[in-house]
Amino acid sequence: MEKNLLYSIQSPSDLRELKVEELRQVCAELRDFILKSNAENPGHLGANLGVVELTVALHYVYNTPFDRLIWDVGHQAYGHKILTGRRDEFHTNRKFKGLCGFPSREESIYDAFGVGHSSTSISAGLGMSVGTSLSGEDRKVVAVIGDGSMTGGMAFEGLNNAAITKSDILVVLNDNQMAIDPNVGGVSQYLVNMSTSTAYNKLRNDVWNLLGSMNSFGPKARKIVHQTQMGLKSMLLRSSNLFEGLNFRYFGPIDGHDTENMVRIMEDLKRIKGPKLLHVITKKGKGFKPAEDDQTKWHAAPGRFDTETGLVIKTTTNKEEKSPIKYQDVFGETIVELSMKNENIVGITPAMPTGCSMNKMMREFPERSFDVGIAEQHAVTFSAGLACEGKMPFCNIYSSFMQRAYDQVIHDVALQKLDVTFFLDRGGLVGADGATHHGVFDLAFLRIIPNMTIAAPMDEWELRDMMYTYQDFGYGPVSIRYPRGKGVRVDWKNEMHKVAPGVGRMLRQGEKIAVLSLGHPGNFVSEALDQIEISSGYQFTHYDMRYVKPLDVNIIQQIASGNYDYVVTVEDGVIQGGFGSAVLEELSLFSYKGGVIRLGVPDHFVEHGTQDDLYRVCEFDVDGIKNKLEELISKL
Amino acid sequence: MEKNLLYSIQSPSDLRELKVEELRQVCAELRDFILKSNAENPGHLGANLGVVELTVALHYVYNTPFDRLIWDVGHQAYGHKILTGRRDEFHTNRKFKGLCGFPSREESIYDAFGVGHSSTSISAGLGMSVGTSLSGEDRKVVAVIGDGSMTGGMAFEGLNNAAITKSDILVVLNDNQMAIDPNVGGVSQYLVNMSTSTAYNKLRNDVWNLLGSMNSFGPKARKIVHQTQMGLKSMLLRSSNLFEGLNFRYFGPIDGHDTENMVRIMEDLKRIKGPKLLHVITKKGKGFKPAEDDQTKWHAAPGRFDTETGLVIKTTTNKEEKSPIKYQDVFGETIVELSMKNENIVGITPAMPTGCSMNKMMREFPERSFDVGIAEQHAVTFSAGLACEGKMPFCNIYSSFMQRAYDQVIHDVALQKLDVTFFLDRGGLVGADGATHHGVFDLAFLRIIPNMTIAAPMDEWELRDMMYTYQDFGYGPVSIRYPRGKGVRVDWKNEMHKVAPGVGRMLRQGEKIAVLSLGHPGNFVSEALDQIEISSGYQFTHYDMRYVKPLDVNIIQQIASGNYDYVVTVEDGVIQGGFGSAVLEELSLFSYKGGVIRLGVPDHFVEHGTQDDLYRVCEFDVDGIKNKLEELISKL
Repeated sequence: MEKNLLYSIQSPSDLRELKVEELRQVCAELRDFILKSNAENPGHLGANLGVVELTVALHYVYNTPFDRLIWDVGHQAYGHKILTGRRDEFHTNRKFKGLCGFPSREESIYDAFGVGHSSTSISAGLGMSVGTSLSGEDRKVVAVIGDGSMTGGMAFEGLNNAAITKSDILVVLNDNQMAIDPNVGGVSQYLVNMSTSTAYNKLRNDVWNLLGSMNSFGPKARKIVHQTQMGLKSMLLRSSNLFEGLNFRYFGPIDGHDTENMVRIMEDLKRIKGPKLLHVITKKGKGFKPAEDDQTKWHAAPGRFDTETGLVIKTTTNKEEKSPIKYQDVFGETIVELSMKNENIVGITPAMPTGCSMNKMMREFPERSFDVGIAEQHAVTFSAGLACEGKMPFCNIYSSFMQRAYDQVIHDVALQKLDVTFFLDRGGLVGADGATHHGVFDLAFLRIIPNMTIAAPMDEWELRDMMYTYQDFGYGPVSIRYPRGKGVRVDWKNEMHKVAPGVGRMLRQGEKIAVLSLGHPGNFVSEALDQIEISSGYQFTHYDMRYVKPLDVNIIQQIASGNYDYVVTVEDGVIQGGFGSAVLEELSLFSYKGGVIRLGVPDHFVEHGTQDDLYRVCEFDVDGIKNKLEELISKL
Repeated sequence: MEKNLLYSIQSPSDLRELKVEELRQVCAELRDFILKSNAENPGHLGANLGVVELTVALHYVYNTPFDRLIWDVGHQAYGHKILTGRRDEFHTNRKFKGLCGFPSREESIYDAFGVGHSSTSISAGLGMSVGTSLSGEDRKVVAVIGDGSMTGGMAFEGLNNAAITKSDILVVLNDNQMAIDPNVGGVSQYLVNMSTSTAYNKLRNDVWNLLGSMNSFGPKARKIVHQTQMGLKSMLLRSSNLFEGLNFRYFGPIDGHDTENMVRIMEDLKRIKGPKLLHVITKKGKGFKPAEDDQTKWHAAPGRFDTETGLVIKTTTNKEEKSPIKYQDVFGETIVELSMKNENIVGITPAMPTGCSMNKMMREFPERSFDVGIAEQHAVTFSAGLACEGKMPFCNIYSSFMQRAYDQVIHDVALQKLDVTFFLDRGGLVGADGATHHGVFDLAFLRIIPNMTIAAPMDEWELRDMMYTYQDFGYGPVSIRYPRGKGVRVDWKNEMHKVAPGVGRMLRQGEKIAVLSLGHPGNFVSEALDQIEISSGYQFTHYDMRYVKPLDVNIIQQIASGNYDYVVTVEDGVIQGGFGSAVLEELSLFSYKGGVIRLGVPDHFVEHGTQDDLYRVCEFDVDGIKNKLEELISKL
């Protein structure tokens, strides 16, 4: 039996002691390891299978961690983690207290830059490259970026700036024509053109051959050649390519599954000065047929699965027919339902058609739905432009990615009071994706913007009612945020009604303590209050506030003028500046003198784990709320 | 005497009735009008002189306002405003209650999209273009964007998306090689290459000529031609140009001061389907020699000036030798002073070297300072990369532009606790630039980010002390914000001392009311308290809190346990979620029962005017504070 090479690699320096011919075996073992570990502990499978050879080649050629290797987004860094001392812990990937699903500087010295969001690697790498040369160190910097991430404007800003810095950065363009869904846009088409035909490189050769052969046609031809050659040469070398137009030396495209060839080329590139880009063609899901065949489905493994057949292993508790559907699917079904009658509605998503279920709209109304690529800034202002022409944009952006479009919300939408309705999917703690992906800031950063209406439904019915309401003109910008995962109702498809802006609802009337909840955690409050009524007999008041802005002033006034010792606010977002803070501000205006306790996400970055794990550590799960209320009872 | 044409134009439809030969006269009159009005009422002169002919051509050819004309940034839209019914009000430009210095949908139906920040026009225009085709209207959309704005990633996101939409948008690239300072980066160099040599268009012709002449060399040559021609043709037409690589049809470069030629070309372009880009070369300051010769100085007119000589007219009250210098210059002088001793310091600015006075650093330490172009996202993450390599980045970004890099601050800097010190110039109300430029949100949106230290100096000495403190490692991300304009001290150059994070200072001890101020408005508080002591004899407590985060808990505790009926907070930022809100949160933790009054910017967008006008309407100027305190005195 062949010796297992992967298990002999404790760090990349072990890898670098192998012969280049042995790398093929390392790759096979690494791919197998990734596949099997994902079959047990599902994670971002597809991209990781695609970059096995690239990962091995990079660590083989570059002297990591002294040389800096930066992954963009970073959900393709499993192989990197496994080769850099984290193989034996890898079964804890994305689990509570386990390895992070993305590179993290805190986790390993090999993770040169923490990532999670898209299109940051070139900027970070350029900073490192410039910083290291200022210090006089001969350190190489490599930034790996996918073709999907390349559509993010920030990547372009980095490319543009690299052109004028003294940097030897290598950008590896990992081109698999996919983000999570198929990649879209001009750059994507451009890369296909460069890769699929004989066009680019062959043509370059053809032209040189042509010019060379012209010399044999006598002086007239030689003169034409001479006149043309200089300009043509400069154009071909500099401008004939998107990247060379930006002063990057372009190499490729090359086969990203041919390790030995990549090693050879990278060795050469190490010696070439200035910013350069290596275009590598890979296949998402490479080596696992089900993932190659349905790349979107297998972007993240859809559950535990059989590594032979790709069949997802159903657990016995899986009674899907009776469980609520996901909030995102309520959005997806309802936008289609509304669009049947309201022809003004248009759907916009920045590269998340599957993730936010806009794909349902794209199937039913392809002309009225727009996947704009990984480009949140553009998504928002594009929506603003649509609103100017009388359309009713439903722009769906994950809460944490909305951070990318903050200025556009303020400057292009809110300032002009345009009717754009934002849907912030993944609002609140998202679970296994961890710190980079938690959508915990939106309530706080959006509520400070004038003209905004900010809502969070407590369940599927409220989400649908809000969609029904904010399909109409005249409300200005609206944000409706809901969490990752499932709702609470099996019969989610209610008959929709309007919900007026700034109007909450009382769910339970009691005394001494008023609990004000926003959105989905209202369900935790209900359960906690049920338990307290049984255990202690206390009945407290509970309001589902629905809106952070406008905040329901009538409710606040009733509380302030009522006989409440405590107000407790509950939200799935940061405590500082968030919903609870808005309640505090309003109570202060009404001179409320009782205590105010705000539950939510504390002032530190929350790691990964299941959503339940994280609600618990942030102490706004059912037990956390109950404990806090019992503590207050003891003071009543 | 020749009839004045400009005064006959009440709207673009009047312009369109003129003969094309008459446009030259209109341009001359318009340029003269802009020059003279700016000499009296200084505004963004340079860019406006540069686009006179382009503006006239666009309104002549396109059927505005039915056709949509979108200006990027929009400080070049004076000619547009003058031609669209606002000539007679133009003397109120940028004044309180007068015309806005930028296009504004509220102001005019001709202002298709409100602007102020950079790089939004393509996205907005694309949204309009798609929206209008969905409605079946035959409306043209033109987005005018400068080469400086083109370096913003958002513009690239828009270009990338346009490639796959069914849009006939025309992007006019107004290429003057300038932002406010000279434009930098790969795109800029690329445009120079395209414009300055015979290279691009001539070369294209040369190649066709070459291929044509080859046919005369017999069958062998013809075969080579045939083999090469198809590929070469497709490459030249599609990929040989940055924009054509992105599926935009490229036209140009053309002379942006030849109105008749532009009219002819635009008429043609109206009939061409699909997204297209017209590259127009203009000269900033065109027609006014001083502005042509020093384009950065004359980006905005440096004061009232003589239209013959360009000499700035000094007012008699102008005693510059005794007045405090600007905060930005304190920054600029001090970063140089510190960098002499601390070689880790590096300076980063996104295209604002003159505006934030980083140009001083660029002169003294060109290797250690970086103008990265209009690219705030990149500026922040580039700084993060530098921090990873042991540099100490001083990254200076205007407060309102920092909204563009919000995600990068959270995701790339704060999450990784990197030592990056941000300087937020133009923090607070900025005056004449108005709603798009007020830096009023930063305190609120930054304070919710874990790991951040958020400071605001009350005067020049505190600014210098903060710079001195946060040049050292170990503090993680820090934001130091200060206002536009002058400080309060003539002797600004103190000997610097460390100021510990989260430590405020008592300026005045009194009773019953405690005033907590943040930053520069602390000076208004001091004066208001002086006046009140004289008029009513009351002495109140005053703290300069220095930090929003960490908030000085000792001070809050002293206040909560003291005998204060009221706490008044004062800040130059939004009341909702800002400094006052942070004080409220902390007071609530200490069970403070008194009243809390928060002064600052209310929850609506504030228009333009002088800073003093705006402090007054927001009621946190000296009188506003005094009035509020007198109101409270009556309740004591």
